[in-house]
Amino acid sequence: MSYSPSTRTRPTRAPQRVSYDRELVHCVLDEAVVSHVGFVVDGAPVVLPQLHARLDDVLYLHGSTGARALLAARDGGLEVCVTVTLLDALVLARSAFHHSVNYRSVVVHGTAVVVVDDKEKAAALAVLVEAIAPGRGAGTRPPTRKELAATTVLRLPLEEVSAKVRTGPPVDEDADLCLPYWAGVLPLRTVAGPPIPAPDLPTHIEVPDHVTAWRRPA
Amino acid sequence: MSYSPSTRTRPTRAPQRVSYDRELVHCVLDEAVVSHVGFVVDGAPVVLPQLHARLDDVLYLHGSTGARALLAARDGGLEVCVTVTLLDALVLARSAFHHSVNYRSVVVHGTAVVVVDDKEKAAALAVLVEAIAPGRGAGTRPPTRKELAATTVLRLPLEEVSAKVRTGPPVDEDADLCLPYWAGVLPLRTVAGPPIPAPDLPTHIEVPDHVTAWRRPA
Repeated sequence: MSYSPSTRTRPTRAPQRVSYDRELVHCVLDEAVVSHVGFVVDGAPVVLPQLHARLDDVLYLHGSTGARALLAARDGGLEVCVTVTLLDALVLARSAFHHSVNYRSVVVHGTAVVVVDDKEKAAALAVLVEAIAPGRGAGTRPPTRKELAATTVLRLPLEEVSAKVRTGPPVDEDADLCLPYWAGVLPLRTVAGPPIPAPDLPTHIEVPDHVTAWRRPA
Repeated sequence: MSYSPSTRTRPTRAPQRVSYDRELVHCVLDEAVVSHVGFVVDGAPVVLPQLHARLDDVLYLHGSTGARALLAARDGGLEVCVTVTLLDALVLARSAFHHSVNYRSVVVHGTAVVVVDDKEKAAALAVLVEAIAPGRGAGTRPPTRKELAATTVLRLPLEEVSAKVRTGPPVDEDADLCLPYWAGVLPLRTVAGPPIPAPDLPTHIEVPDHVTAWRRPA
């Protein structure tokens, strides 16, 4: 299944890298911990990093998007562009010109609205915690009514969405293939180090599986 | 030395996390390979991932920011917000509510202009290659005049800039400290896997030091 292209998500360059595949879009959104949320304040762009989580075809944004953005979102919705980028490799070509990176990115355009329904907000916060560390939901205290009230969650439907992917080796000019320079790809990945217990954690509480097993999907 | 706060870079929340320290700002910009560039098209926000490099107090953006943005940038400059985020750790609290991440982010507001001077453009492309992999510049063919003409580089002065940093353990409610849940921090870092030579690379060319030694600063 695919999302439909729009004027904004139709590529102006490198069309072979663009996809509307729903599964690919979901994979990228789910793998990324941080997204970048763009909105307009007084005619000027603002981009802030944000935690997000996906539930079916809805993207939830954790509400510390800045006071002004939240006020706007309350008042009929906030036009946003949410972009998520996973850096997969450095692409080292023989020529400076053909240097690049391999990546998977997703761009979502739409209007984000504040979630007012308590049941939806609780569900969104649950997936937000799971998005930080899968399995974590069962190992934490759920939010109280007061905490729910103190949290703002934005809801952005996945409708106007596109993904962009670069994979594979560097593409060099034929004339450069004989140059004495190494060319290739240096894969990058995010790994977790040893967990650091909170200073006030009782010593008998062991590190749970959902922490030791944390990894970005391959 | 510090950048000066502006209305836009003065925090509306969590002021203890905000900094204008020049060295910190430079470190974050230099460590990140990808930035997120926000601009306004027809009144709506657009955020695209982008390669960037810093030279003193100038941020250079590699010009595949989309045709419309580049046209705007040519025509007197493009108002942008460039945001860079380094994810350092997952912060796992006892309560769902206090889950967070440790991060270092930088937000730059300003007007990006197209670099027209060939000397500046060549210098910018050189730092852009070095930003992908330090030391790489000496191991590649420099751009030809034709390649320089085919590349667009945007120049954004570092003037209206702020950094935001969260470090340390989760902060839980006193009443939650006795809960039987593990709490702490899971550090994350980006590591390189084994380099993959281009399929058309002659076998006698060995992997150079600047590739095997690549690592994100600690």
